[in-house]
Amino acid sequence: MTKIEPRTLKGFPDYAPKEQLARQAMFSKIQSSFERFGFLPLSTPVLEYKEILMGKYGEDEKLVYSFQDNGDRDVAMRYDLTVPLARFVAQNQGQLTLPFKRYQIAPVWRAENTQRGRLREFYQCDIDVVGTENQLSDAEVAACLCKTLEELGVKKYELRINDRKLFNLFSNNFAGGMERIVEVLRAVDKFYKIGKQGVLNILKEKDFSETELMQVAAMLEWGLNAEAFANIRRDFPEAGAVITEMENLIGFMVVAGVPLENIVFDPLITRGLDYYTGVVFEISITDGKEFGSIVGGGRYDSLVDQFSNTPLPAVGGSIGIDRLFEYLESKKLLKAVQPVKVLVLNLDKSLQREYVALATQLRDSGMNAELYFEVAKLDKQFKYAESKGIPFAVLIGEDEKNRGVVKIKNLQTRAQEEIPRAELLRKLS
Amino acid sequence: MTKIEPRTLKGFPDYAPKEQLARQAMFSKIQSSFERFGFLPLSTPVLEYKEILMGKYGEDEKLVYSFQDNGDRDVAMRYDLTVPLARFVAQNQGQLTLPFKRYQIAPVWRAENTQRGRLREFYQCDIDVVGTENQLSDAEVAACLCKTLEELGVKKYELRINDRKLFNLFSNNFAGGMERIVEVLRAVDKFYKIGKQGVLNILKEKDFSETELMQVAAMLEWGLNAEAFANIRRDFPEAGAVITEMENLIGFMVVAGVPLENIVFDPLITRGLDYYTGVVFEISITDGKEFGSIVGGGRYDSLVDQFSNTPLPAVGGSIGIDRLFEYLESKKLLKAVQPVKVLVLNLDKSLQREYVALATQLRDSGMNAELYFEVAKLDKQFKYAESKGIPFAVLIGEDEKNRGVVKIKNLQTRAQEEIPRAELLRKLS
Repeated sequence: MTKIEPRTLKGFPDYAPKEQLARQAMFSKIQSSFERFGFLPLSTPVLEYKEILMGKYGEDEKLVYSFQDNGDRDVAMRYDLTVPLARFVAQNQGQLTLPFKRYQIAPVWRAENTQRGRLREFYQCDIDVVGTENQLSDAEVAACLCKTLEELGVKKYELRINDRKLFNLFSNNFAGGMERIVEVLRAVDKFYKIGKQGVLNILKEKDFSETELMQVAAMLEWGLNAEAFANIRRDFPEAGAVITEMENLIGFMVVAGVPLENIVFDPLITRGLDYYTGVVFEISITDGKEFGSIVGGGRYDSLVDQFSNTPLPAVGGSIGIDRLFEYLESKKLLKAVQPVKVLVLNLDKSLQREYVALATQLRDSGMNAELYFEVAKLDKQFKYAESKGIPFAVLIGEDEKNRGVVKIKNLQTRAQEEIPRAELLRKLS
Repeated sequence: MTKIEPRTLKGFPDYAPKEQLARQAMFSKIQSSFERFGFLPLSTPVLEYKEILMGKYGEDEKLVYSFQDNGDRDVAMRYDLTVPLARFVAQNQGQLTLPFKRYQIAPVWRAENTQRGRLREFYQCDIDVVGTENQLSDAEVAACLCKTLEELGVKKYELRINDRKLFNLFSNNFAGGMERIVEVLRAVDKFYKIGKQGVLNILKEKDFSETELMQVAAMLEWGLNAEAFANIRRDFPEAGAVITEMENLIGFMVVAGVPLENIVFDPLITRGLDYYTGVVFEISITDGKEFGSIVGGGRYDSLVDQFSNTPLPAVGGSIGIDRLFEYLESKKLLKAVQPVKVLVLNLDKSLQREYVALATQLRDSGMNAELYFEVAKLDKQFKYAESKGIPFAVLIGEDEKNRGVVKIKNLQTRAQEEIPRAELLRKLS
């Protein structure tokens, strides 16, 4: 028979049991934290009509996995969890009570360049509120994501927040249409990587006027927090209402339990995606800056419009779970949660029914118990238990059976003791 | 702006929160039951190299979703969880301690004819043991699946079991190669739908000889259980060892807690898939026969060989989760698990910080609490709570605030009471 080489596609990982157990433990904590804020789960399919996904991701659209199915339909694998949500609420408007609050934890696919170390199949963890413009929803989305990080053991983090409306007001000062403004936005977005002069150089090459460059230069010096509030009020009196809104929002976030010192108002944060219309934010972890921003989100009041005549404002955020997992592993914040408690050893073929009965008794009492399937040397069976991290082994041979006892071995301490069979359950629980 | 019609592909379902909560509760119980037997989770990617999946599914291979990715690689969406497992163990042989026991609960894709009422994206729940031929592994796989059904509230079920080796021995009596034998197997597989004469008619049309037809006719009358054991021993003395093995296996299953009256030895059960080599079984639910067989599995000792020079025998089984879910819903065996306990009502814009603080306090005490985002009429807010199944609402207006009290409304009984604010937590928990 011709052998087929067993291999996986680049950027499409397997997760072996040890890692998958840790991932599941993390997902489960995230889920509880989302439910604590009243978000409930939604599941959408992996494949969508291609037209549903197109036109939402700007220049990254080429990264969408798409193909023709057997019925010649143009289909695409989901690229994020936000556009399918917009499609879902538009499709089910009549039946949903608004606001609709949902979470989704699921894989998405992007044909990324793997040389940048990115996966092509990776998980997103999103919460969103659809159907209200009220600021409380912005505050709670941001607070819920912060609390979720805290529940996972993250102690110090920084949430940078801004409002796209500020940028829209600011861009009234520029000649040219939306395309020119997007050029400014993209250049400003690079500020923390390339500095003030870098941003201005990009715009100079694109023939922005001296006056325009001076305005961008002033913006780049607005600073953070209270200083920025004051500078913006001075430079753009028409932005006063947006600044007041932002101050209120930060107030709500603090009452919702996000420490004020973790919140930074930063007028240069814009977030890449085209669909944001209001508040935008991103969170990085103070002792994990190398992982970049772990959480991002914002308000997108026009996305659902693309599918519906009724406008449905929305706000949401997403945790970059693979980066967060790496951070938590690096800080040993994920506790190993090996669920199997005991291995029933297999020493004697004639006693196999006895072993099955013993494993069954342990399981019936609610304990996770495994039976070694082959009669094998004790060493081999102990190694098996250790490789899975099983803490106890139970041993019965002919002699133990006749005397009505069992031996229990603690595989960490190597201590072994003999107890009456009837005491086994009590001993292990 | 041109609107895009919000719609999903046929056979690709959304699961709205209420249903998804019930599904997650079911998955979580299944997961616990699998872990009780020492199975641990494995996650494999959705896309595989196409060549990995091809040649395993017989005539159903045309149902595999496949396409060329941006790098012109032939890729395919996983069709089941078994072939990716075989690929994984072959790829990681050096690092895995055998036997390797894993579970996986994940969606798979099949381009089925939706007119048959089948989904194209659906979940499978699999357990498998790779690396041992020992019968105890067959017994435990079957027992674990039975116990899982029991944990979900299924009281009476029937496990039909057979051994493909019997059919292989039997087919020595037929002229022609493997193709002819597969024709017999497929015809016999239809026995319970079309009866004895139906099976014989199919084979007659395919020019099987009179002697061959008589042998098939005899096989169709072997019957079940002890009667079948006796008939086979009489007709095929060379099958005696297989029968003895089967008797032993059933013995182990009974010790593992599967009631003997739920087990039926049925020599006509063959299961469709090409890769089975030994024991095969399927489980149907006694008061849910209309859902067909809910669980299926068997031994497949040659599948991993296709990827590896080291043979790795394996046994496993799979729960058809969508059918099981329908059954459980129809019998009201899935308890609603709405996780949100209380809605903080929003009555007065000037008190919104108070409301955020109250929701935060409830959450910090571990309670799932939701805040209504807009100031709205009480009726509207109560309706929202009811639509989500939230049992309690908490109300503070200017008056309540000044008097240091809160009102709690039980949304099921409609009873309302006023208590000191300090007693709220105790009252709700």
